[in-house]
Amino acid sequence: MRIHHHQVEHHDSQSIGQWVEQFRPFAKEGKCASYIPALAQKDPQQLAISIIGPNSEQIVGGDVTELFTLQSVSKVVTFILACMDRGLPYVLERVDVEPTGDTFNSIIRLESHQPGKPFNPMINAGAITVSSMLDGNSPQEKVAKILLFLEQMVGKQLKVNEEVFQSEWQTANRNRSLAYYLMDSGFLDCPVEEALEVYLKQCAIEVNVSDLAMIGLVIANDGYHPQRKIQLFPKQVAKLAKALMVTCGMYNASGKFAAFIGLPAKSGVSGAIVAAVPNHASLESPFPAGCGIGIYGPAIDDIGNSVAGVKLLKHVADEWNMTIF
Amino acid sequence: MRIHHHQVEHHDSQSIGQWVEQFRPFAKEGKCASYIPALAQKDPQQLAISIIGPNSEQIVGGDVTELFTLQSVSKVVTFILACMDRGLPYVLERVDVEPTGDTFNSIIRLESHQPGKPFNPMINAGAITVSSMLDGNSPQEKVAKILLFLEQMVGKQLKVNEEVFQSEWQTANRNRSLAYYLMDSGFLDCPVEEALEVYLKQCAIEVNVSDLAMIGLVIANDGYHPQRKIQLFPKQVAKLAKALMVTCGMYNASGKFAAFIGLPAKSGVSGAIVAAVPNHASLESPFPAGCGIGIYGPAIDDIGNSVAGVKLLKHVADEWNMTIF
Amino acid sequence: MRIHHHQVEHHDSQSIGQWVEQFRPFAKEGKCASYIPALAQKDPQQLAISIIGPNSEQIVGGDVTELFTLQSVSKVVTFILACMDRGLPYVLERVDVEPTGDTFNSIIRLESHQPGKPFNPMINAGAITVSSMLDGNSPQEKVAKILLFLEQMVGKQLKVNEEVFQSEWQTANRNRSLAYYLMDSGFLDCPVEEALEVYLKQCAIEVNVSDLAMIGLVIANDGYHPQRKIQLFPKQVAKLAKALMVTCGMYNASGKFAAFIGLPAKSGVSGAIVAAVPNHASLESPFPAGCGIGIYGPAIDDIGNSVAGVKLLKHVADEWNMTIF
Amino acid sequence: MRIHHHQVEHHDSQSIGQWVEQFRPFAKEGKCASYIPALAQKDPQQLAISIIGPNSEQIVGGDVTELFTLQSVSKVVTFILACMDRGLPYVLERVDVEPTGDTFNSIIRLESHQPGKPFNPMINAGAITVSSMLDGNSPQEKVAKILLFLEQMVGKQLKVNEEVFQSEWQTANRNRSLAYYLMDSGFLDCPVEEALEVYLKQCAIEVNVSDLAMIGLVIANDGYHPQRKIQLFPKQVAKLAKALMVTCGMYNASGKFAAFIGLPAKSGVSGAIVAAVPNHASLESPFPAGCGIGIYGPAIDDIGNSVAGVKLLKHVADEWNMTIF
Repeated sequence: MRIHHHQVEHHDSQSIGQWVEQFRPFAKEGKCASYIPALAQKDPQQLAISIIGPNSEQIVGGDVTELFTLQSVSKVVTFILACMDRGLPYVLERVDVEPTGDTFNSIIRLESHQPGKPFNPMINAGAITVSSMLDGNSPQEKVAKILLFLEQMVGKQLKVNEEVFQSEWQTANRNRSLAYYLMDSGFLDCPVEEALEVYLKQCAIEVNVSDLAMIGLVIANDGYHPQRKIQLFPKQVAKLAKALMVTCGMYNASGKFAAFIGLPAKSGVSGAIVAAVPNHASLESPFPAGCGIGIYGPAIDDIGNSVAGVKLLKHVADEWNMTIF
Repeated sequence: MRIHHHQVEHHDSQSIGQWVEQFRPFAKEGKCASYIPALAQKDPQQLAISIIGPNSEQIVGGDVTELFTLQSVSKVVTFILACMDRGLPYVLERVDVEPTGDTFNSIIRLESHQPGKPFNPMINAGAITVSSMLDGNSPQEKVAKILLFLEQMVGKQLKVNEEVFQSEWQTANRNRSLAYYLMDSGFLDCPVEEALEVYLKQCAIEVNVSDLAMIGLVIANDGYHPQRKIQLFPKQVAKLAKALMVTCGMYNASGKFAAFIGLPAKSGVSGAIVAAVPNHASLESPFPAGCGIGIYGPAIDDIGNSVAGVKLLKHVADEWNMTIF
Repeated sequence: MRIHHHQVEHHDSQSIGQWVEQFRPFAKEGKCASYIPALAQKDPQQLAISIIGPNSEQIVGGDVTELFTLQSVSKVVTFILACMDRGLPYVLERVDVEPTGDTFNSIIRLESHQPGKPFNPMINAGAITVSSMLDGNSPQEKVAKILLFLEQMVGKQLKVNEEVFQSEWQTANRNRSLAYYLMDSGFLDCPVEEALEVYLKQCAIEVNVSDLAMIGLVIANDGYHPQRKIQLFPKQVAKLAKALMVTCGMYNASGKFAAFIGLPAKSGVSGAIVAAVPNHASLESPFPAGCGIGIYGPAIDDIGNSVAGVKLLKHVADEWNMTIF
Repeated sequence: MRIHHHQVEHHDSQSIGQWVEQFRPFAKEGKCASYIPALAQKDPQQLAISIIGPNSEQIVGGDVTELFTLQSVSKVVTFILACMDRGLPYVLERVDVEPTGDTFNSIIRLESHQPGKPFNPMINAGAITVSSMLDGNSPQEKVAKILLFLEQMVGKQLKVNEEVFQSEWQTANRNRSLAYYLMDSGFLDCPVEEALEVYLKQCAIEVNVSDLAMIGLVIANDGYHPQRKIQLFPKQVAKLAKALMVTCGMYNASGKFAAFIGLPAKSGVSGAIVAAVPNHASLESPFPAGCGIGIYGPAIDDIGNSVAGVKLLKHVADEWNMTIF
């Protein structure tokens, strides 16, 4: 376990390390995502956490140097970016912000609910629409903008894991189906293959848990980067992102996550979870409110969430009384 | 406008009165619920608000003496009561806590998602299941328990509006359809007609906006009644109720309500809205956090929410920076 | 095996008897309907067939004296009766004639396809609507009319098996759910409990396979009773009934039944099947065209059709080249 | 009006000509398919019919020289061809033969009914699967086989209308969505773009009404070509094709078409209809049974069927008592 920036009290650091080991065994209740070949090869036993506070407090535990891809966590980032690029009204005309109760790759509502507007940007359909709206004349330009925006948050240059991207690109039939459906009903702003390239590349951006925590930190602080002391995106967009994370962030276990953990969070099938503890949330922890949490545990459940990761996050939230409710 | 208990600063009281008049005209964009005959006769122009803080601060505006029925607002109350009566695991085995994106009276998921467990207690299917679980050997006993529980919160005896109940009872075909479906798939704990009687009577309990605000106050304070200084229900249940209000409380506009208002709230087709401002929420208002809000505006939109009421609540939340995000 | 009326050539009678024994063992691939308690007690090994031609030719095989209830076979009878009572336009305004691909007790389309008109009279929703339309001021009168109509076809008085009716009445939650939904959307012509009483009593009418064959005979002959030499119902209604039997008669295996057997037929969860061989159908059999077939084999498959019965009917149709295609 | 081959009695020819003019005005209740640009330019007033009997009797009326594309009529042809190429069991493992009640381009059941096997080959999803199964190492080879098979039926070489194909290819987003979904769930036998090329080219094959009638003639005669006196495809496949035409051939008006017309038929959004009058059907016409009918009327209804064409066909079937029921 490494302590960065400001040192947090010894016993808290120790706790985190113990908690990681306590919840690591639950990984065996899940398994690595198999439909993306490159993810299937990950070590399911890995588990890591990083929490970063507004004054650079940080505490980490577990496999913190491990790199993994953002996958659906990227949906929060591109949604925020699209709102900045296009303005909220433009974005909301093309994607709703309602939870669905369906699986993340469901296509049913695009047909059953006219006019087929995707229900929210946290499911694949909505995320592909969002990716199509980003500024840029090519997938390359759009991806470059995403990477630049992430760099402003995490403080270092990230990159797309090409192997993961290729792996997903080859097997993206379901996402292609969604994208062509969206194109047919007028909810794509660029050609299908371009939107998919952006979407799958954003999913394949590589991070570690502390990068995730930095993303959570900026969202938690309403778009304000407390270390760099600049407003990276509007407060209103940040609040909307947090609301979406609560209502739709944890796939179709979002309701249970809100009920029993109560933090804005977004998961990915890589086993990533980012959580944002709003800067006025209830908190009895080594951190002031307004902190970000990154979690990684590649063994996921049927719904798509890291099994050990969710349990670890619940334990931390319970112990330190982190909740928005 | 009347000021109760402690007086809140004059200009705030004044603001509320002005805001009510500012938003009253929007009532004409909605209309009174027509499928319940007794509700159709209400004056659509009415609008009222009451906010009560933990130290008995109160501010009110509009038609505050008007009586109306709880309708779906009662779903929060009976869910809390069922959790107290049966324990959380028992309740959660019979009703999930996931949002659906469907209309409140939808039956589709009972068939399409096996084993047909209702998705959450804020839609009719889930609420009927919850009512069937309440303690009591008869509908009368169950309703008596609900009224007693409400009395503990609002500080006075409430009663069922028999005319509204009869009106709903006669026309409850859709709810009967839901209830018989639930019975068929094993999700009712008592006979259909008994569960329906409880459900429709809880919907017909009569309140005013300050009663609503008192309910919101206790939920906001995690089950603790700040005036009576007793814990009426467990903190965990209160947090779960608030999470459900955020993810599912405003029918299938819950996502937009969370995104743009960001408070746990529950609406009813009578035009009632209860909101709970958690005791650690962001707030720049005449009130400390941990306050409850009651709203009444009988002209509702297609989704079932008070048109003027939602606009008034958004204005108050914006002005006083009330949000959990 | 008994031979009635005119004797059919000896070797054909022998064939039928052998075929029954040949297909009887397939009963073990199914089981008696368990959701209706009175049906669950039947002997799953039973199998019987009766074929009656326009000139009173008859051939029978297997357990031909066994009594069983019509169940969904009654849907054809009441549909014809409703068309006579109300006229085709009135009936078609309240029930469509389109196949659905859904299970017989599905409720989804009543909500998903506005205005919620049941898709056809062969699924429960449509059949309940049809029962509600029958002439008569009470369930008793309506049931009496059905029994009278059946008597005109089969030549003897039939009766409702009260034990089966009571068994179904007690457990009819799913049908009640359908009926209340239909009432809510305006597709019931009498109170729910009355429509259900008629529907469940028509299902509980007791017959043997030769009674079934007589029903098939009249339908095959376009409503004309070849023995009694009277037109019992209009040719147009008979043709419509046969079309419905082909597109929707065998639950959601209707397509496969049409594809591989190719006869208008209707099955019931009691294991009953009635088939009508139109009076101009292709036929190389001991019978002229225009014959009726009754089958009974109580062990049904997941879809609701008699396992051994369908196989026996397919064999007979193949051997004797009975098909409308 | 031209009379080919054997001359049919004068007054029947006259009748057909009059009937065409009688039903032509109903075209204004429909309109040409607008989602395929090349179809939108057709003259909606056109109407034509051709009936060909087993002994080369023929009667025609209306715009009989007009060329149009097969569109969904091709689905019957490729289904038959796939059964010949792969054998029935192979085909039925990949496409079911059940009607759905949904629109022809619906995607919902691919997700809602596991394992996502398309319900029948007459809806787009099933037809694309069928096209992917055809013999041939390239789209060109597969299309060549279809054209050869058609040539064997109609007696002349047909060709793909390249303009229509290009028009559909450019706008085939919904079909691409279906195809990628099918690929994802394992129901495509060749790459998506190849299957789509075959499918859209088969739809763009150009015919006149007499070509259609010839296709109907061979199907009516169980795969036997009465003029060329050869069996073009197995009787069992022909009967299955006729069953599919009855249960699913007229989009989601198939039930009503069976109920009120009662002939195996398949329509296309070009306004084409092919009908097969089985060789033992009831008939009081200038033709013996076993005849084929081709109809063309480009103004289609919301469901996709030629408005005037269906009315004309119903009139002919009524007048000449053509029905399988």
